[in-house]
Amino acid sequence: MKLQFAAWPEVEEYLRANAGIIVPIGSTEQHGPTGLMGTDYIIPSAMAEAISERTGICCTPPITFGMAQHHLGFPGTISLRPSTYVSVLVDVIQSLARHGFRRIVFLNGHGGNIAPVLTAMNEFYAGISFHREGGHRDVLCKLISWWTPPKTAAEITEIFGDGDGAHATASEIAVTQFLHSRYIKPVSADLRPARKGAVSDIHNAYDYRDRFIDGRIGSDVRLCTPEGGQRVFDVATDEIAEECMAFFSS
Amino acid sequence: MKLQFAAWPEVEEYLRANAGIIVPIGSTEQHGPTGLMGTDYIIPSAMAEAISERTGICCTPPITFGMAQHHLGFPGTISLRPSTYVSVLVDVIQSLARHGFRRIVFLNGHGGNIAPVLTAMNEFYAGISFHREGGHRDVLCKLISWWTPPKTAAEITEIFGDGDGAHATASEIAVTQFLHSRYIKPVSADLRPARKGAVSDIHNAYDYRDRFIDGRIGSDVRLCTPEGGQRVFDVATDEIAEECMAFFSS
Amino acid sequence: MKLQFAAWPEVEEYLRANAGIIVPIGSTEQHGPTGLMGTDYIIPSAMAEAISERTGICCTPPITFGMAQHHLGFPGTISLRPSTYVSVLVDVIQSLARHGFRRIVFLNGHGGNIAPVLTAMNEFYAGISFHREGGHRDVLCKLISWWTPPKTAAEITEIFGDGDGAHATASEIAVTQFLHSRYIKPVSADLRPARKGAVSDIHNAYDYRDRFIDGRIGSDVRLCTPEGGQRVFDVATDEIAEECMAFFSS
Amino acid sequence: MKLQFAAWPEVEEYLRANAGIIVPIGSTEQHGPTGLMGTDYIIPSAMAEAISERTGICCTPPITFGMAQHHLGFPGTISLRPSTYVSVLVDVIQSLARHGFRRIVFLNGHGGNIAPVLTAMNEFYAGISFHREGGHRDVLCKLISWWTPPKTAAEITEIFGDGDGAHATASEIAVTQFLHSRYIKPVSADLRPARKGAVSDIHNAYDYRDRFIDGRIGSDVRLCTPEGGQRVFDVATDEIAEECMAFFSS
Amino acid sequence: MKLQFAAWPEVEEYLRANAGIIVPIGSTEQHGPTGLMGTDYIIPSAMAEAISERTGICCTPPITFGMAQHHLGFPGTISLRPSTYVSVLVDVIQSLARHGFRRIVFLNGHGGNIAPVLTAMNEFYAGISFHREGGHRDVLCKLISWWTPPKTAAEITEIFGDGDGAHATASEIAVTQFLHSRYIKPVSADLRPARKGAVSDIHNAYDYRDRFIDGRIGSDVRLCTPEGGQRVFDVATDEIAEECMAFFSS
Amino acid sequence: MKLQFAAWPEVEEYLRANAGIIVPIGSTEQHGPTGLMGTDYIIPSAMAEAISERTGICCTPPITFGMAQHHLGFPGTISLRPSTYVSVLVDVIQSLARHGFRRIVFLNGHGGNIAPVLTAMNEFYAGISFHREGGHRDVLCKLISWWTPPKTAAEITEIFGDGDGAHATASEIAVTQFLHSRYIKPVSADLRPARKGAVSDIHNAYDYRDRFIDGRIGSDVRLCTPEGGQRVFDVATDEIAEECMAFFSS
Repeated sequence: MKLQFAAWPEVEEYLRANAGIIVPIGSTEQHGPTGLMGTDYIIPSAMAEAISERTGICCTPPITFGMAQHHLGFPGTISLRPSTYVSVLVDVIQSLARHGFRRIVFLNGHGGNIAPVLTAMNEFYAGISFHREGGHRDVLCKLISWWTPPKTAAEITEIFGDGDGAHATASEIAVTQFLHSRYIKPVSADLRPARKGAVSDIHNAYDYRDRFIDGRIGSDVRLCTPEGGQRVFDVATDEIAEECMAFFSS
Repeated sequence: MKLQFAAWPEVEEYLRANAGIIVPIGSTEQHGPTGLMGTDYIIPSAMAEAISERTGICCTPPITFGMAQHHLGFPGTISLRPSTYVSVLVDVIQSLARHGFRRIVFLNGHGGNIAPVLTAMNEFYAGISFHREGGHRDVLCKLISWWTPPKTAAEITEIFGDGDGAHATASEIAVTQFLHSRYIKPVSADLRPARKGAVSDIHNAYDYRDRFIDGRIGSDVRLCTPEGGQRVFDVATDEIAEECMAFFSS
Repeated sequence: MKLQFAAWPEVEEYLRANAGIIVPIGSTEQHGPTGLMGTDYIIPSAMAEAISERTGICCTPPITFGMAQHHLGFPGTISLRPSTYVSVLVDVIQSLARHGFRRIVFLNGHGGNIAPVLTAMNEFYAGISFHREGGHRDVLCKLISWWTPPKTAAEITEIFGDGDGAHATASEIAVTQFLHSRYIKPVSADLRPARKGAVSDIHNAYDYRDRFIDGRIGSDVRLCTPEGGQRVFDVATDEIAEECMAFFSS
Repeated sequence: MKLQFAAWPEVEEYLRANAGIIVPIGSTEQHGPTGLMGTDYIIPSAMAEAISERTGICCTPPITFGMAQHHLGFPGTISLRPSTYVSVLVDVIQSLARHGFRRIVFLNGHGGNIAPVLTAMNEFYAGISFHREGGHRDVLCKLISWWTPPKTAAEITEIFGDGDGAHATASEIAVTQFLHSRYIKPVSADLRPARKGAVSDIHNAYDYRDRFIDGRIGSDVRLCTPEGGQRVFDVATDEIAEECMAFFSS
Repeated sequence: MKLQFAAWPEVEEYLRANAGIIVPIGSTEQHGPTGLMGTDYIIPSAMAEAISERTGICCTPPITFGMAQHHLGFPGTISLRPSTYVSVLVDVIQSLARHGFRRIVFLNGHGGNIAPVLTAMNEFYAGISFHREGGHRDVLCKLISWWTPPKTAAEITEIFGDGDGAHATASEIAVTQFLHSRYIKPVSADLRPARKGAVSDIHNAYDYRDRFIDGRIGSDVRLCTPEGGQRVFDVATDEIAEECMAFFSS
Repeated sequence: MKLQFAAWPEVEEYLRANAGIIVPIGSTEQHGPTGLMGTDYIIPSAMAEAISERTGICCTPPITFGMAQHHLGFPGTISLRPSTYVSVLVDVIQSLARHGFRRIVFLNGHGGNIAPVLTAMNEFYAGISFHREGGHRDVLCKLISWWTPPKTAAEITEIFGDGDGAHATASEIAVTQFLHSRYIKPVSADLRPARKGAVSDIHNAYDYRDRFIDGRIGSDVRLCTPEGGQRVFDVATDEIAEECMAFFSS
């Protein structure tokens, strides 16, 4: 069930037999000279819908903006402050917990979201932990960044190898090519693999743009094809569906 | 240009000649026994995309969650606290202002958002007004709730009359029927027009559910048809496009 | 009962038979070249006291500062950030709710307060709505901006017509002339009606001062007389008293 | 100049020659079985107006609510959370600083405000201190609790001695009797001096009401007379005027 | 029991018979040309440990940073914003209250902390006072600034007289000389007593450095000796231990 | 240089030639039936001091409390809410940045701090990234959790193998045995290795205590010896010193 297309009695019905839900999260931010600004929410949203269609698991609409302050040096990037993002996620958890959801998966498409999502979960949990009387003790949250489950990670390595990179990765751009072929951007012949870097090289937006001049980190977008994207999408969708089912029944 | 499908150099290019942008906002909340939970963001998002395709105006992905605390009595509703929502909108404005956008339209699909959106604009403006040196003095924001421009309001009245209601309105449900016919829910024969009410009758979620037992306020959903929805959509899209163009050139 | 002149046992006594209270709110901000900075709280405060004397309804002292960021371009204006103002109002509601007040009217003298007051009410309600156990479910709030009830609005139109304007209105200045004749400022012969404008023309303080050079919007203060002010005051006081009584008994 | 009765060009004129202003602050809270709820803002407000009339110093309207959480056990008390109150005061300082005020006196009528007012000043100063570039370095704030200057304190001791107490003091009630004789409450014959206590005995509202059963701390309200109140008012007004003048010219 | 060196079953055991705890708080900030940056937390931490060893009272590790915005003009000073510091202290109180601690002493080494600590206590209490149901009504907090109990203050005056000063005092530097003789800094022959000043002379960091050019206020550090420090330390430790015992059994 | 034992002119001198600093962070929280509550700040603090003594690098006093909400089920644990902790770290960074520090290492002893520390860095960076004018663009932060550098991790595995566990690890307890042999707690003969678990098994404090009944996750504390602790301490100190030097010269 896709929450946005349900009416509330259908949700009520769902909750009689289920307590799990998937919330797709991501970002609207630069993805290099050829990647889509919406890459990071488009992918987990599409994955959540695919999982929902196959398994009946309820998924919400995506949270389209995330924590992307380091990409603000490139036009079009929209970022929430980390503290704002934490508040958003806490409110979403509390809304869902109120209705009886007890297992909440954040299906994430953006590395920069990982720390604030974990922080938000702990902010929610802290409200419970500080008070002896605390409600919602059985509400458990889980973060899944779609490219990290082992089979998915292996598939990405097999297809894109070292050229996948760390931002505006070949794999994520390929998945968007599969999902939205209408918006495939041509890769100019002289677009070389981007300079490599680690998460610890990411600081503010000025520093970022100085280090990574076209926005990508380490990715070789010449490797992207819709077919490669589809392979990754299929493996990830299967694997994440299984992870969700296991978590929901824990 | 739909921001989510653009790459950053396209945004950079757009900003050389333009300074306006549309941000669709709404809510994921109960819309009565037959309305879609996503109604309030689905409509402005579709309108923004239609306007964008016709005029070239840049629009962002929708903010799918809004201020819907009064609907939390119905399963599936997701709400941000008003203070969280204000922070989100301020961050979005600041992200856009940083890139050079100077006219920002929030195209809104949910009445409960109106006060916090205006509050957020003032929170952003206050940051400028308090400081003599202030940047971004030329960044102006505008809220358009899609059902309020005069021609659109007249069209709604002509088609749905008094049966339109105040929440889960016949017109908005009809528009979603036009946009997503796959998800049209059957209306049971005994579903009567809902009890009427005013905005001042809306308080907390418990009180709301006591007053408006199936979630609707005053709407007669037996009036909904995809054709009626299309008529409203077309008039609104034309009128809002004009309002945006006028604002962007002010 | 005026709360500031009561002792606590009198409030305890009042609460045995009553659950309603009026909180006058407004602003301390520029009102053009001849209007009083305190106009916006002076009027609702005087109205609340008049209503209190006639009906016995309890009223609090006024909150003298409000959301006036757009007027900060004129010396003397004091503004709270919208987020601060929301916090203030939530705390006031929670103080009153704790004592057993169940119907709270904010009697408002300033247009800029409307959005943050509604936002504050929702912030208070959200605390209830998010938690199943929630207390204070029967505490309901209502905003009345004194110039908006229908008879009052009609009286204003009858007396001041189109010259009333939208800020530093002829009617509000006339009411202060009635209430504080000692502080009537002379109107210079060459003071013309101010340029017109709409709420949507109000942005930050710099932009505001550029558009509305002496602070007024559309008002012709040559029309102000204490007699006109008294007529408005009397009609408004009657009408608002009735609205409060109806709300308190709802 | 009383700010509420001025028009903005008068404030502009004032600022050409002056940079000092008085902001009366206090509370609306229980003052024992016979004291006025508004005592704590009524007194500093009246003092500020008296000083203003005599010296021409500008004073603002009072902030009528303060930090009174410990009095919430008595009906009618309205309290801001300390954190809210800090935000209010910071916004007021920033509003005044923006206009060119450079010496701001908070004339205080409530002991519970002292810590949050000092905290607010430091919050404002911290904004300056953290940033090398910082504006408003020459904006200095001062807190004067009206009963603390030495001559005033001596006068209180002379008139009321040990019976003055620590809350709902004989002196403050006497001052309100002088200012508002209409609202003098009769003291029942059997009203004994209240139990004594220190500031360190003040904790939450439940504990407070357990310790101090009618709200007073150590005060003998049988000593109150309007004449005694006038003597205190006059001494305090003189002394505080001098302190302000000295501070403004520092 | 020093909390940092205990295992949790020992704390559980302690709480069976005790409900009191000492939390040492201070600052890391400039203390003039010869004083240690850590003076303000080193002293209360050492005192708390000495009291703990003698009486068995539980003490926590020190909070090493405090509210020191006014010292940021001198390199090395670390300050929390007052609002941050308030949040920290509230969280510490709530952590301790959750475990069953009912009497919490903040043993303080820094004057600038006094207002925010009192504000934090009230923020915690306000959470209780606002809600009828409120938990933790029996959790009481107390602030002891180590130099203020009467015998300690007298000892300081006897040893250092007028040369003690108001910041980077002779007495506190002497105590650190006693505690950490390895870090005694030589006093240059031409280091004169510092200019005097009052708490009301402290504003922002720029103003502070202009007024007090080497950071000290009124202190004559030529008077410091480890022996003098030991005398102060011993008197203070005895007196504070007694104050704590009295408070814990209240 | 240990900041707490320096005087400000020494810091000024240090900053002429250096721009790097180490801030030890950790937690005061349960570490199983035999581990010290202070383990998580004691270790990075001792490491920072050892590195400082060897290299001259400046280190601050430790931040003794961290994000430990999940351990609040065990008496003695003190936790900041994640949002509070983020504010603390941002203020510390801003204090250091103001003085001219340009490379800040947070040397961390607690897994639960990782997400909020990264969030705090991004909150600080966001302040820069949002504003075109932004100061402090060259201030870069780095998080080092002491047990993660490769040689250190290998040493831990070599000594403790699988018995190291995930909380109250054998290695960290061994290091505290080396540092504070006075506080080594006896291990009862029947204390078995604790149940294993992953970070994703950590939720609120109630759930945690249900899963991990004596507080430990997967650790076999029978393996702890001061000698093993010293080996880990020495390897870690060397490796972290090198990492810091490399970062400071980047």
